[in-house]
Amino acid sequence: MEKPTVGRLDSYDPASIECIMRCMRVNDTSRPWRPSPYCIQQKKDNHMQQILERMASIAPLDTGAMELARTRQQQLTKPAGSLGRLEDIAIHIAGITGQPVPRIEQKAVIIMAGDHGVTSEGVSAYPAAVTPQMVHNFLQGGAAINALAQYVGAKVIVVDVGVAADIAHPDLLSRKVAFGTANMVLAPAMTRAQMLEAIHVGIDVCDALLEQGVDLVATGDMGIGNTTASSAMTAALLQTPVALVTGRGTGINDEQLTHKIQVIEKALARHAPNPQAPFDVLMKVGGLEIAGLVGVIVAAASHRVPVVIDGFISGAAALMAVEFNPLIREYLLAGHASVERGHRLILERLGLSPLLDLQLRLGEGTGAVLAMSLIEAALHAHSEMATFEEAGVSTREEK
Amino acid sequence: MEKPTVGRLDSYDPASIECIMRCMRVNDTSRPWRPSPYCIQQKKDNHMQQILERMASIAPLDTGAMELARTRQQQLTKPAGSLGRLEDIAIHIAGITGQPVPRIEQKAVIIMAGDHGVTSEGVSAYPAAVTPQMVHNFLQGGAAINALAQYVGAKVIVVDVGVAADIAHPDLLSRKVAFGTANMVLAPAMTRAQMLEAIHVGIDVCDALLEQGVDLVATGDMGIGNTTASSAMTAALLQTPVALVTGRGTGINDEQLTHKIQVIEKALARHAPNPQAPFDVLMKVGGLEIAGLVGVIVAAASHRVPVVIDGFISGAAALMAVEFNPLIREYLLAGHASVERGHRLILERLGLSPLLDLQLRLGEGTGAVLAMSLIEAALHAHSEMATFEEAGVSTREEK
Repeated sequence: MEKPTVGRLDSYDPASIECIMRCMRVNDTSRPWRPSPYCIQQKKDNHMQQILERMASIAPLDTGAMELARTRQQQLTKPAGSLGRLEDIAIHIAGITGQPVPRIEQKAVIIMAGDHGVTSEGVSAYPAAVTPQMVHNFLQGGAAINALAQYVGAKVIVVDVGVAADIAHPDLLSRKVAFGTANMVLAPAMTRAQMLEAIHVGIDVCDALLEQGVDLVATGDMGIGNTTASSAMTAALLQTPVALVTGRGTGINDEQLTHKIQVIEKALARHAPNPQAPFDVLMKVGGLEIAGLVGVIVAAASHRVPVVIDGFISGAAALMAVEFNPLIREYLLAGHASVERGHRLILERLGLSPLLDLQLRLGEGTGAVLAMSLIEAALHAHSEMATFEEAGVSTREEK
Repeated sequence: MEKPTVGRLDSYDPASIECIMRCMRVNDTSRPWRPSPYCIQQKKDNHMQQILERMASIAPLDTGAMELARTRQQQLTKPAGSLGRLEDIAIHIAGITGQPVPRIEQKAVIIMAGDHGVTSEGVSAYPAAVTPQMVHNFLQGGAAINALAQYVGAKVIVVDVGVAADIAHPDLLSRKVAFGTANMVLAPAMTRAQMLEAIHVGIDVCDALLEQGVDLVATGDMGIGNTTASSAMTAALLQTPVALVTGRGTGINDEQLTHKIQVIEKALARHAPNPQAPFDVLMKVGGLEIAGLVGVIVAAASHRVPVVIDGFISGAAALMAVEFNPLIREYLLAGHASVERGHRLILERLGLSPLLDLQLRLGEGTGAVLAMSLIEAALHAHSEMATFEEAGVSTREEK
């Protein structure tokens, strides 16, 4: 193992820190990853400290609970394997929670909202003013995510982590880090302090919800311009041409799409984010709400709570988190396959197979909350079905 | 239009009747199909009469309601089209029900149970005794369909239309037409009278449920050996090699699969069912529960109630019904894509795209009830979301 130099740590450049952390990461994901004492001892930055500790606390899946769940599935009154992915979900969540027969008591979708300076380049079909308007709409209960979350019985938690307008509402979690990001074409989207603060907000909000008893979390997002940030992050992290991971977002035309691709290429050329350093990528071309979602994912994983990721924006956050600590992948379920083309590449890299493919491209967490009902249904079948013995049903004829 | 000869009708061979009906069928599915008075005047057989009348009463989708639903979707606070198939579902169900903002009040899955004489050829991994055992399990609430239906809030209706054992239970609808079908290798699976009676049972059961207020129906099945019957029907109706539409059912091995294919080929060679005559196919190589499901589908369509079809067995019933009257297709939603290989070919022929692909291969209606929750969620978003005007959200910037 390469020993990090104190000099590099003292300079406290996040890219350097994560280079160190990555070189110390155990490749064997069956053992928990732990940062070295060199990192832990750094006290200069509480948020970084907190993030490192959380990363360090993420454990592998509980294979004992998974084995018990697998055995139970074989005893239930159905041909072995005939419930397909519903069986896999039950076994997976047994591994996440450590409960052979897991139950979901409270679901929540956490919507991180933030604005993007890059919208001044004309990358979106909608004006940036729509971000605060839609945040109001979430709080009034009028958006798609409200209707779908109500239908599946999930709480909607709306967090202002970076909306470029003052918003006040009793149900809003006001944790604004900045009034939107900087225009990534001209400057890094965030300062390092802003990025760490936004991740911290995600951890904090998620922690509080889990403490209230939430045991299934969905990630959601709102931010005009955030497919641009997500495409930039994805292109950088996957080292893929921008055109391959850039789509029409809320519905731009061919000409606008070409322009959007050029804007992203310009930003990446300017900043040259280090693909080996996820934090560097997030800071330079990401978004405050994406950083917030990274925090949500890390917090849930550290508490052994499954996270249902939504579409492209959530996917970029998940990719970033998993690049940082591969164990996080084990705590994720992919809610759906977004129409945004970069999303499929992200899921491929993460090795996740989406539960739904309904041609959604809305964000807000809509695909994730829809998938929550499949996950709950899978657990309900796992816990409520009779076994062959209980039901007096014959097992297969072995020939 | 070819005028049917009275002589052929008088002979009352079902294959002839449907040849006549098919030649009279309008190819333009925007106009309702009507059987000729030659058919309606036949009084000799009440069940055939009833089936013909029901077929005749099926109307096209309500395009006016669909247009209103489409307009509403464009006004809701989301980029146009961003809810993908959820939008299509809402518009489709508006067309089925004639309500621009349709609501679902009561859901039910109708499980038709029947046995198959062909099991004596050793085509299944499970003994035929499992059919009545599983029917008991449904009635005790221990099966997968019970757990999933309970989760989505659907009633489970279990109908004995042809189980090869006496079953008594207060919640069972005992409408037994026969103690299973005949072994199709040796004789037609059903007599014509049995087939018509089984279809009648399906119509009758569905009618009663709709009268009680059920407004979304899922089809389910139970019958050891019924993938064999469904493969035989599919091969005959689609004129496809048996091997292309025959799968492992509840989980047979390679050798057993080869044998299953040979058994089906033998039955088809013996009976040479007429692919132009769906009733001929159903009678000779189908099943009592499949005939029952045909009745359920026809009844629901005639009442403008959407039907969510489950996997391969439901698919064979749907294919049969749609071959008879193409308008029925408009009332169907495909719940999921089964692992059974013949199912995808059926969906292709029907032009239906499955809502879920979770590698299920259980039947019972499991995939259909899971999809019910997506359908309800789609309608909930359609009815509950705010419009741009209501929410004060800006629409897109036209450039």
